[in-house]
Amino acid sequence: TSEITVANYILTRLVQLGVTKMFGVPGDFNLAFLDLVEDHKSIDWVGNCNELNAAYAADGYARVKQTSLGVVTTTFGVGELSAMNGIAGAFSEMVPVLHLVGVPSTTQQKARPILHHTLGDGRYDAYTIASQQFTIMQTSLNKDSDVARLIDDTLVACITRARPVYMTLPTDMVYEHISAERLKIPLARHPAINDVETEDFVLDVIEERVKEAGGDVIILVDACVIRFEVQDEVNDLLRSTGFPVYATPMGKTAIDESYERYGGVYIGSITQPLVKERVESAKLILSIGLLSSDFNTGNFSYNIPIRRLIELHSDHTRIQYALFQGVGMKQLLPKLTERLKQFHANASKIPVEPFTSMVPKSMGGDETIVHSHFWPRVGQFFQPKDVIITETGTANFGIMNIPLPDGAKLVSQILWGSIGWSVGSALGAAFAARETGKNRVILFVGEGSLQLTVQELSPMIRHGLTPILFVINNAGYTIEKFIHGKYRKYNNVDNWKWTGLLDTFGCNSGKPSKSYTVSTRTELDRLLNNEEFGAAKQIQLVEVVMPALDAPDVLTQTAGQKA
Amino acid sequence: TSEITVANYILTRLVQLGVTKMFGVPGDFNLAFLDLVEDHKSIDWVGNCNELNAAYAADGYARVKQTSLGVVTTTFGVGELSAMNGIAGAFSEMVPVLHLVGVPSTTQQKARPILHHTLGDGRYDAYTIASQQFTIMQTSLNKDSDVARLIDDTLVACITRARPVYMTLPTDMVYEHISAERLKIPLARHPAINDVETEDFVLDVIEERVKEAGGDVIILVDACVIRFEVQDEVNDLLRSTGFPVYATPMGKTAIDESYERYGGVYIGSITQPLVKERVESAKLILSIGLLSSDFNTGNFSYNIPIRRLIELHSDHTRIQYALFQGVGMKQLLPKLTERLKQFHANASKIPVEPFTSMVPKSMGGDETIVHSHFWPRVGQFFQPKDVIITETGTANFGIMNIPLPDGAKLVSQILWGSIGWSVGSALGAAFAARETGKNRVILFVGEGSLQLTVQELSPMIRHGLTPILFVINNAGYTIEKFIHGKYRKYNNVDNWKWTGLLDTFGCNSGKPSKSYTVSTRTELDRLLNNEEFGAAKQIQLVEVVMPALDAPDVLTQTAGQKA
Ligand SMILES: Cc1ncc(C[n+]2csc(CCOP(=O)(O)OP(=O)(O)O)c2C)c(N)n1
Ligand SMILES: Cc1ncc(C[n+]2csc(CCOP(=O)(O)OP(=O)(O)O)c2C)c(N)n1
Ligand SMILES: [Mg+2]
Ligand SMILES: [Mg+2]
Repeated sequence: TSEITVANYILTRLVQLGVTKMFGVPGDFNLAFLDLVEDHKSIDWVGNCNELNAAYAADGYARVKQTSLGVVTTTFGVGELSAMNGIAGAFSEMVPVLHLVGVPSTTQQKARPILHHTLGDGRYDAYTIASQQFTIMQTSLNKDSDVARLIDDTLVACITRARPVYMTLPTDMVYEHISAERLKIPLARHPAINDVETEDFVLDVIEERVKEAGGDVIILVDACVIRFEVQDEVNDLLRSTGFPVYATPMGKTAIDESYERYGGVYIGSITQPLVKERVESAKLILSIGLLSSDFNTGNFSYNIPIRRLIELHSDHTRIQYALFQGVGMKQLLPKLTERLKQFHANASKIPVEPFTSMVPKSMGGDETIVHSHFWPRVGQFFQPKDVIITETGTANFGIMNIPLPDGAKLVSQILWGSIGWSVGSALGAAFAARETGKNRVILFVGEGSLQLTVQELSPMIRHGLTPILFVINNAGYTIEKFIHGKYRKYNNVDNWKWTGLLDTFGCNSGKPSKSYTVSTRTELDRLLNNEEFGAAKQIQLVEVVMPALDAPDVLTQTAGQKA
Repeated sequence: TSEITVANYILTRLVQLGVTKMFGVPGDFNLAFLDLVEDHKSIDWVGNCNELNAAYAADGYARVKQTSLGVVTTTFGVGELSAMNGIAGAFSEMVPVLHLVGVPSTTQQKARPILHHTLGDGRYDAYTIASQQFTIMQTSLNKDSDVARLIDDTLVACITRARPVYMTLPTDMVYEHISAERLKIPLARHPAINDVETEDFVLDVIEERVKEAGGDVIILVDACVIRFEVQDEVNDLLRSTGFPVYATPMGKTAIDESYERYGGVYIGSITQPLVKERVESAKLILSIGLLSSDFNTGNFSYNIPIRRLIELHSDHTRIQYALFQGVGMKQLLPKLTERLKQFHANASKIPVEPFTSMVPKSMGGDETIVHSHFWPRVGQFFQPKDVIITETGTANFGIMNIPLPDGAKLVSQILWGSIGWSVGSALGAAFAARETGKNRVILFVGEGSLQLTVQELSPMIRHGLTPILFVINNAGYTIEKFIHGKYRKYNNVDNWKWTGLLDTFGCNSGKPSKSYTVSTRTELDRLLNNEEFGAAKQIQLVEVVMPALDAPDVLTQTAGQKA
């Protein structure tokens, strides 16, 4: 049988899974591996400025690419630990990321000398132990193991369970030869098949419940529809049944927001009144891919009795109070569609108010850019297939009630909520958008958040990516001010020359860039109407000057709940 | 008895230990605590741009402040994990840092809802478990515990063992009242007293060995002399005995390099020949605070037989092959001085070549700034009591054989070697330098390393700190190029407008700053001779343009060893 080096085995598998970019930072223990990446014909090395940003980028790449995964390569200790928050975020938010760590040779791992990047006490397993908390599998490649199988199992776990995995590659394993035989077998992309009998039972019960409800059912799509890639299946269900559909904050854009039976976003008690009424008065709520976190549920304020709730998850189903293990939605959904299409006639009569937003008329010609104006206004700027990324802060809340066009994709990190994430994520997302036929990449980030990861603008420029970066400059951590410490100094941040950033990082790159400041609604309008700006042919940064103590309604309401 | 809130108990203890600055980033779970920090009369909040940089700053603060500790405050999950590499670095390099994490309330910790910043699966202990790998103590404050004692024990562990500790402060514990009684008892600053009988025996044996050697002894000072604060004790020993003294890379400036019996730096096989000869030919080598890591020992190339070696450590002593547990150097050293001063007459005759460096004459008027020129030249620029910080990369190696003036302190991270560290560290060091009567803070950082943590220039400006920042611009990761991949693209970095950084971050701050580029030796000379520049009255950044493939000899030799 033919042989292949361990490194190339990994790279071949990644190519099979659609990976074209690898994020990370070089280090002594991964340099030899990086030779092979640099020389690889279909995987490119994206050198990041630091490892946390690289992990964020891998996460953003995986989110937009879907059906693929993100890869971040770091070096022993210093590199991998820097990436840890990014990996934990991928765990929390269920994003498939491979964290590949270059580590000392297998010989050194046995002798355990006090190399640089060690803790000085010979504990070579400390980083792996820590990573157990944030990855679903930790794989150490060494000469005694069935390397090919281990690699395969690790990658399968990553993509089928949509969680990060951790793999260490010792320097002396990079060029080790193993059999290439397994590469002929494609890796399983989806979780195990449902148990037929349980599944049948579940289908019967759901059909029965829907019948009892006279077809008065609404569907609520949530994060895991995206994470476990059942968007097509859900769309089929929707079109076949005509059930109205709503989304949670983390499920936003799982279903096209231009779909005529889509009614907007449900966030428990802080939902817009009509939407709230529609969702909560349905006889049956079919929740798909529910992720029940505080900010995703209006701080756990759903007003939906469990008696009226059916939940489809990646690996189980809940019908009212009953749990059905091993019945996952990927296989269940098509069958459910078959069962439920009979209700189309009734279901399609249930009214759904169109999901819209209006730019409010300015009072007395006030020119201040406030959230209640800004978000509806940028809503008009969006185009089909745009990838829109919002950062934790006012941005995440501002976007919620803005309808996004056909094929647009919203990327945010509502559960993990690590600020700075969106900047690295936008880098990865921009690569993925280019590859998947998406349109523009548009980032909304608070200036406080931008400060954490600002250097990642640099690889965006280097690689000729052309995102539009809206930087909300409101003199500090506005979201925190609403939570606690409204007038506290610790909630202020330095006022950088935001429009100087692209130039500072990029002026020697030969790549064009453009920066703008908008301080009035008129300036904002003019910019958003400017066709050249909208064409996004170069990287552009827009400083949006907003008042320190203005926030979207959804945020002030959320903050109110917490108090 | 009088009562005090938990938060103020912590702050009071920190003040007693000399803490004046607290580093970190706000977050929902530490905001209430930050109110008390902001209002505190003798502790200032230093808002950092991100948590990794904050941890680096706490580390730099602790290194320069000595006898105190660094404190970094983060928020649950996202914040604390971002700081993890910085904390692990403090562990590895033995720097006392308190990582104080604001976490959900004790009630929430019991109910374990899926709050933001959780992993989505109810594991509230995951971050603490991970931190066990990188801190010597993890303390969770809650209502059932003896809070005051726990806080005390945690802080004592931190300062006596010179390692990071981890403490979680739930939101509902901040204002809990506890007795203030214990605050009257000062915390122990030094490890337990030695066992008298063992210590006596050790003293006898050492005296005997020195006698056998006829006083032909040299002393080798290493990292732990600084970390365990025995610099005064070592100085007494040196002056009383007249033994020649040398330093390891990590021990550099533990002893004033202007001391007349100081002979320079010993790095095993890559030591300068005369120094190597002097150290290795001594009949007895008394090593104090040895830290035996790869880069600190010329890749484990000491040519010193164990028969001729005595090692004093913080909690044990080694004489040739014999280990004496529980005999630590802090108490041993003064007694040893008493025993060994009898050898002064003989010892003071042992020759010590003066430790100097010479700026080489340029060949044919070559104006290129190369390492062999640069380091001796900046050597002349240093002043007494300067704090000099060097980053992993060419800088760490370039500084090694440059003699530093009286009271100068070198700060570097040779064991952990996480690039970007020096920038955050310089921020913390600059505060500590100001408080401890040091002179200027001078940073040498590669442009590749600066990219990881560049935003931390921003708080330097905000707080009016005035470090001099030398940025070595050599078109990439030069140190890595010498290790592997000399012509590889992954070892190149973007060429930012380095001299635009201070302006971009600081132009709205009202604080002055100045930036320079030097590309020739003449320009370098002119700048270093400029008195206003040398006075360091404002923050200054110097871009030093150097060839991509030039490196200090010590580095090329080290890289050669590895191959
Ligand atoms: C890594 C990390 N550190 C700290 C926090 C706490 N935090 C959440 S939002 C926020 C402020 C964001 O401010 P900004 O980006 O300016 O957004 P704004 O609300 O002002 O629009 C902070 C500090 C966090 N979520 N993640
Ligand atoms: C956090 C972290 N990531 C990666 C590395 C690997 N590494 C060590 S030195 C270095 C390059 C430093 O380059 P630069 O700062 O430009 O210094 P130079 O040698 O060029 O002067 C890298 C990438 C590391 N030590 N730490
Ligand atoms: Mg802000
Ligand atoms: Mg460099």
